[in-house]
Amino acid sequence: MNPQFETMKVSIFEEMSLAAARHGALNLGQGFPDFGWPDPLLDEAARLVREGSNQYPPSRGLPVLREALTAFYADRQGLTLTPEQFVVTSGATEAIAAVLLAALEPGDGAIVIAPAYDAYAPLIRRAGGHVQEVVLRPPTWQVDRASLEAVITPATRLLVVNNPHNPTGRLLDARELQLLADVAREHDLLILSDEVWEEVLAPGVRFTSLASIAPERTIKVGSAGKIFSLTGWKVGWAAGPAELASVIARAHQYLTFATPPHLQAAVAFGLGHGEWLDGPRHGFARARQRLAEGLERAGYALLPSEGTYFQCVDLRASGIGLDDRAFATLAVEQAGIAVIPLSPFTEGEPERGLVRLCFAKRDETIDGAIAAMATAR
Amino acid sequence: MNPQFETMKVSIFEEMSLAAARHGALNLGQGFPDFGWPDPLLDEAARLVREGSNQYPPSRGLPVLREALTAFYADRQGLTLTPEQFVVTSGATEAIAAVLLAALEPGDGAIVIAPAYDAYAPLIRRAGGHVQEVVLRPPTWQVDRASLEAVITPATRLLVVNNPHNPTGRLLDARELQLLADVAREHDLLILSDEVWEEVLAPGVRFTSLASIAPERTIKVGSAGKIFSLTGWKVGWAAGPAELASVIARAHQYLTFATPPHLQAAVAFGLGHGEWLDGPRHGFARARQRLAEGLERAGYALLPSEGTYFQCVDLRASGIGLDDRAFATLAVEQAGIAVIPLSPFTEGEPERGLVRLCFAKRDETIDGAIAAMATAR
Ligand SMILES: CSCCC(=O)C(=O)O
Ligand SMILES: CSCCC(=O)C(=O)O
Repeated sequence: MNPQFETMKVSIFEEMSLAAARHGALNLGQGFPDFGWPDPLLDEAARLVREGSNQYPPSRGLPVLREALTAFYADRQGLTLTPEQFVVTSGATEAIAAVLLAALEPGDGAIVIAPAYDAYAPLIRRAGGHVQEVVLRPPTWQVDRASLEAVITPATRLLVVNNPHNPTGRLLDARELQLLADVAREHDLLILSDEVWEEVLAPGVRFTSLASIAPERTIKVGSAGKIFSLTGWKVGWAAGPAELASVIARAHQYLTFATPPHLQAAVAFGLGHGEWLDGPRHGFARARQRLAEGLERAGYALLPSEGTYFQCVDLRASGIGLDDRAFATLAVEQAGIAVIPLSPFTEGEPERGLVRLCFAKRDETIDGAIAAMATAR
Repeated sequence: MNPQFETMKVSIFEEMSLAAARHGALNLGQGFPDFGWPDPLLDEAARLVREGSNQYPPSRGLPVLREALTAFYADRQGLTLTPEQFVVTSGATEAIAAVLLAALEPGDGAIVIAPAYDAYAPLIRRAGGHVQEVVLRPPTWQVDRASLEAVITPATRLLVVNNPHNPTGRLLDARELQLLADVAREHDLLILSDEVWEEVLAPGVRFTSLASIAPERTIKVGSAGKIFSLTGWKVGWAAGPAELASVIARAHQYLTFATPPHLQAAVAFGLGHGEWLDGPRHGFARARQRLAEGLERAGYALLPSEGTYFQCVDLRASGIGLDDRAFATLAVEQAGIAVIPLSPFTEGEPERGLVRLCFAKRDETIDGAIAAMATAR
């Protein structure tokens, strides 16, 4: 078997979710919400699975979905994409895999900004590329030009950006976005912009996509699972310059070929109802505040959280001496709460004093989590 | 972009489906049925999407589905697999991708028996491997030891088998299965056995899986879309020795991570009702006969079809001088029927006088197809 996968461990999300199940712990680890989805979307999917087609849709996605995505992004982010620029995939993970397998050749370098979502590096390597890691530091997690340029070599072909950023909960500012676009232009890099958290922001905050700043080189990845709080639906997409989208479509055709049509059509329906996203935004903001206040009352020091449904806790500043993995193990086994340690998101020199909690949960779960965290210290 | 994908054309299935739509032609090209699914499965999926979880299931698949698969294969094929040996994927295409990306290293050789499903070769190459093609010849399409051994080198690691075989419609016989198992053992090869058509057989025919003959080295791939005539559902799986299944699960975790839970649970429900598969088997057999008789009346010479829902036509023996691609183009553009030419399924020296028709269609579609084919000659 391929040694890269043979020696690979189960992902930290899966590890903590399994541990939560084993110990009957509350699961604030893996990022999934327990409220926030629009019920009409479920009704529409139920109707379509009974009344619509259940046979292969076009590999690149249903036209109705690609048109709905075009309109949605024009309205909410001012993007001027066309339906032909989208490739619908079986979740954003498949979109990321298709982009990396389509874009990279053996020997290519790809910049990853750490802490980073755990799928990027294995896929870059499996595509024959090598990871060029830029490590950000708390509490600001700011990207700067010097650290980007320090890792760039003539082999560098691609820059992976994740904004809003998981696991830190940061939203990149206008200056950083411009810097990333500038550096990519100067070195002629493709940008894979993983923007799956684009709608998981404080109420009223408007998102700026890298696709509006460097449209000629940005491949934007999005996720219906994140937008509509339906992480199990596994409907995602990649969008970019038409000639790049065609190449990504070739990779997608041999990764999953297509995505269930009833889910695609239901997502298209939902994208026409942007107003359905307001309630969940307020709900997540209230949940974040409830969790943050509770954790602070219990003596925890928190980092800022501007996007995603994640809140990071600074163990050192909270007076806890354990490293993040030891704390996470104790928390799930003894305090009955699963959290995600941040060190697995960095390959080089990770911070070892931070853990992440998912706050997209109902009040009783948040309150239970606060109580459990209080016993974990 | 990666030159392999950059120069790749759209798949022949997609090409012909798009041409069918453009010319308003009947589509007997891409393999999908227009009848045969059990309605209770649709009702169950509809119920589950409204009442069940729509959040991430475990990456390896819902336990209820892996248990149902274990029981289904024990009952129908006498296999002694356990739930831990299964990895649920977003369709069989993803299972094939995960197996090849997990199994191969750069430099590895993989045997492909042509004509072959069009996903194998691109995925083998993208995994860093090279394709070692064995070309079968009509009308028997028999595999023999000499042609297998002629392509084996010290680099050979894997043998891809597809049984029942698409696009020929052949069912490998016991002697050939034993031969494949023997050769794989002698050369210590893994077997990727793509058995997605295992239930698309004449009524009463029991399928023999390579997993029962060489269980220690066979990774079996299956598809709910094919078993239940729901090709758009994209629920598939790979099953093999537990240590191989774990490595495949690592690849899967970064290709799609997971598959929609309502579809997984509905498939589990369906697998418990093997009796639902009898009606469609009879229906497909009747449809095959109707199409075959009509084509013969129209002067076409046919090859045998024992499995899959495909019927091959021998153009030369039918007195047609066009090659397969020219005939397919003429048929879709002028006669109003999309068929699949067979030459794209072989890289070396393809046969150029065969086309494939999908007969899993209702009577009126079959009758329309016969009439259209009559005008295509
Ligand atoms: C696909 S599991 C990971 C879910 C997620 O985005 C997270 O928890 O960070
Ligand atoms: C994924 S499209 C191909 C469908 C199929 O199995 C075929 O037509 O051979």
